[in-house]
Amino acid sequence: MKKVRTHIAKIQSGEKVTIAGHVQTVRVQSAVVFIIIRDITGTIQCVIEKTHPQFEIAKSISVESVLEITGSAVTMPGGGVEIQIESVTVLSMAEQLPIQVTGRGAETVSSEVAQDWRFLTLRRERDATIMKTLSAITTGYREALLQSGFTEIFTPKLMGTPSESHAELFKMEYFGGTAYLAQSAQLYKQMAVAAGLERVFEISPTFRADPSFTTRHATEFITLECEMGYIGSFDEVMETLERAIAYMLTSARKACGSEIRKHFGLSDFQLKRQIPRITMHRAKQICAEMGVTSDRADLSPAEERAVCEYVEKEMESEFVYITEYPWESRPFYHKKGISSETGKPISVSADLLYKGIELTTLAQREECYETLCKQCAEKGLKQEGLQWYLDCFRFGMPPHGGWGMGSERFVKQLLGLPSLREAQFLFRGPSRLMP
Amino acid sequence: MKKVRTHIAKIQSGEKVTIAGHVQTVRVQSAVVFIIIRDITGTIQCVIEKTHPQFEIAKSISVESVLEITGSAVTMPGGGVEIQIESVTVLSMAEQLPIQVTGRGAETVSSEVAQDWRFLTLRRERDATIMKTLSAITTGYREALLQSGFTEIFTPKLMGTPSESHAELFKMEYFGGTAYLAQSAQLYKQMAVAAGLERVFEISPTFRADPSFTTRHATEFITLECEMGYIGSFDEVMETLERAIAYMLTSARKACGSEIRKHFGLSDFQLKRQIPRITMHRAKQICAEMGVTSDRADLSPAEERAVCEYVEKEMESEFVYITEYPWESRPFYHKKGISSETGKPISVSADLLYKGIELTTLAQREECYETLCKQCAEKGLKQEGLQWYLDCFRFGMPPHGGWGMGSERFVKQLLGLPSLREAQFLFRGPSRLMP
Repeated sequence: MKKVRTHIAKIQSGEKVTIAGHVQTVRVQSAVVFIIIRDITGTIQCVIEKTHPQFEIAKSISVESVLEITGSAVTMPGGGVEIQIESVTVLSMAEQLPIQVTGRGAETVSSEVAQDWRFLTLRRERDATIMKTLSAITTGYREALLQSGFTEIFTPKLMGTPSESHAELFKMEYFGGTAYLAQSAQLYKQMAVAAGLERVFEISPTFRADPSFTTRHATEFITLECEMGYIGSFDEVMETLERAIAYMLTSARKACGSEIRKHFGLSDFQLKRQIPRITMHRAKQICAEMGVTSDRADLSPAEERAVCEYVEKEMESEFVYITEYPWESRPFYHKKGISSETGKPISVSADLLYKGIELTTLAQREECYETLCKQCAEKGLKQEGLQWYLDCFRFGMPPHGGWGMGSERFVKQLLGLPSLREAQFLFRGPSRLMP
Repeated sequence: MKKVRTHIAKIQSGEKVTIAGHVQTVRVQSAVVFIIIRDITGTIQCVIEKTHPQFEIAKSISVESVLEITGSAVTMPGGGVEIQIESVTVLSMAEQLPIQVTGRGAETVSSEVAQDWRFLTLRRERDATIMKTLSAITTGYREALLQSGFTEIFTPKLMGTPSESHAELFKMEYFGGTAYLAQSAQLYKQMAVAAGLERVFEISPTFRADPSFTTRHATEFITLECEMGYIGSFDEVMETLERAIAYMLTSARKACGSEIRKHFGLSDFQLKRQIPRITMHRAKQICAEMGVTSDRADLSPAEERAVCEYVEKEMESEFVYITEYPWESRPFYHKKGISSETGKPISVSADLLYKGIELTTLAQREECYETLCKQCAEKGLKQEGLQWYLDCFRFGMPPHGGWGMGSERFVKQLLGLPSLREAQFLFRGPSRLMP
């Protein structure tokens, strides 16, 4: 780059500008060459005539090369703006492409090949929009929590003991011992509350040695973590997440609302009303009324879809909190309560469902050491390996609660993507470690 | 918590308030008990008299328990505000403490024991200030780059091939194959530029199986990554980092400037002038004039300290860019240039030094595939394992450059900490994986 660059979306007719980007198409005619240039803000047609000394250079440019073009922006007879080229510099000439990047035929590239050549398929405006959306929602998430006085923390991903469960754990040799990759920041973020940091959040990778090949699983993903101390009730946790989601959606709309509309058909995706709260007991009734049942104490995937359908129709909300989860289907560190409707033991927690699937589990945690040890035993866990965690509860632990939510799953649901892997910069699965 | 909580720093004399926090000290007299409560914003003395029905409860409260106290804020005769307790609720009673958390004797807790009981030592205002500073500088870093139109990315930490070098690499079994933990996001963030995302940043963990036991190494740390495409020259990279650093310092000052002053004696730490730029050739001359020499082509740790001393004295800057690094001491993917002073081959790069040590290396990258392959061979590297990376340069790669900077090292230098591990929520080293 030799000159100050103008982004394509900012070009005004009548200006002399320098732009730079990838070549989307080259159309050679006898007296003129049309080059469509693409940068991160959009595309524009550039034109060079036969009389121009660089005409032959322009003719020879390959698709997806990187050019710097200086010229005049003029309004075309049919409307729209094009650049009349004064000078063109080839910053990087592209070889013959291994796959079709844009244009007709690009949609036939298989999912696996698209992953192999991810840096090429990401050049498509649709795929770039997904990456911008991911960036925007993490920005919105942080803004919401920083404004509420939260501190950002960075908990270790290398652990000396397994975190929540021994299943689906990556482990490695560590200076003669064994280290595990964190499956969750759960125990550490609660430690931050014990450490007096009061309200903390983290955005970080999470690892699961999960052999599933579904459209909503990955072995590495980015989790939006939160833990808040000194809560008056579990309601505060639900309210704080709700506020964060409102910020995330607004941030996406501001960052790339028009691209989201263009490529995913979403014209309005703000949080317009309070997220409805439905107890598990009531959710089961709703499902039964819709003819969807299961023998599970919590909701089956089909039941999750049914409840969401009901809520969208009856309450005009794409989100719903399912509260009063049965105690048996929740981990030992949740606070135990009693259902207001059935009188049975529940965990003081909720699942947030979004367009048919679970986004995250929110819970109040048990803060009393003795009760926690009891619950640990009740769930059949041994205290030894967890003692370092349980110790955090012995020397003054505020009441607290929080959640951990997959960012890519949020983006998948927001944009209606067929698979989680489209929401990742580079997908990681059981058979995918490259590029 | 039953009532709306007021943070201690926000208490106004004359108000009735509810506060909550850890008990810093309990002082029992015959007719009165004084309790000092600490929350994340500060400490305040609370007082309860013998006539109060909860007097006996107050007497029995252990240090570091978590209390909720409602009372009236009144100005004391000697100045300052205290709370006259109306009611006190024990939210969590602390057992006998394993170490002294605050007060006299706390400073004698050894570094290793402090790490063992990290959630207790973090309750010290000084240590909490370090965590707030870390949160603030990452916030400032993001703000600077988001405002300049950068996109936040999340690159994988699980890799199918070693990233930069085969040394100091963590590896693990991965579904019958082998995965490596990312030692840097270098190759991936350049891939993001090739993918048309233009300007990207990332804040993420980085892993090094480094057996060093120094005060500035850890096996896991948080790196502030950046890669910017379409640069006109390397100057733009230095200017962008400089702007980010100004934001980081301002953000720390806003978030916890007074605590930083109190505990680390820093009254003013804004970036007041442009960061001076000194060539390696000139830096070596300066060192020689100061009687500090080495046989290295780049700077030894002693020379780094000497240059910083010189710059601080002569140019009133705690930061300095050392430019024109000799080509032999840089990796293959840097752009090669010629020194303006010595005519010798250099890498188009700089090291940013801060108060005597290197914070980060910034560089323009080589974007031409053929040149890059040549440089790869020149440095004795085999192309095979890197082909997935080199492929990014074959189909249109904009000119670009960037850096990766350790966040904890920045905080260590800013606050003048004796060791990097104090800047980590939980330190990870060769013999430290717990808690």
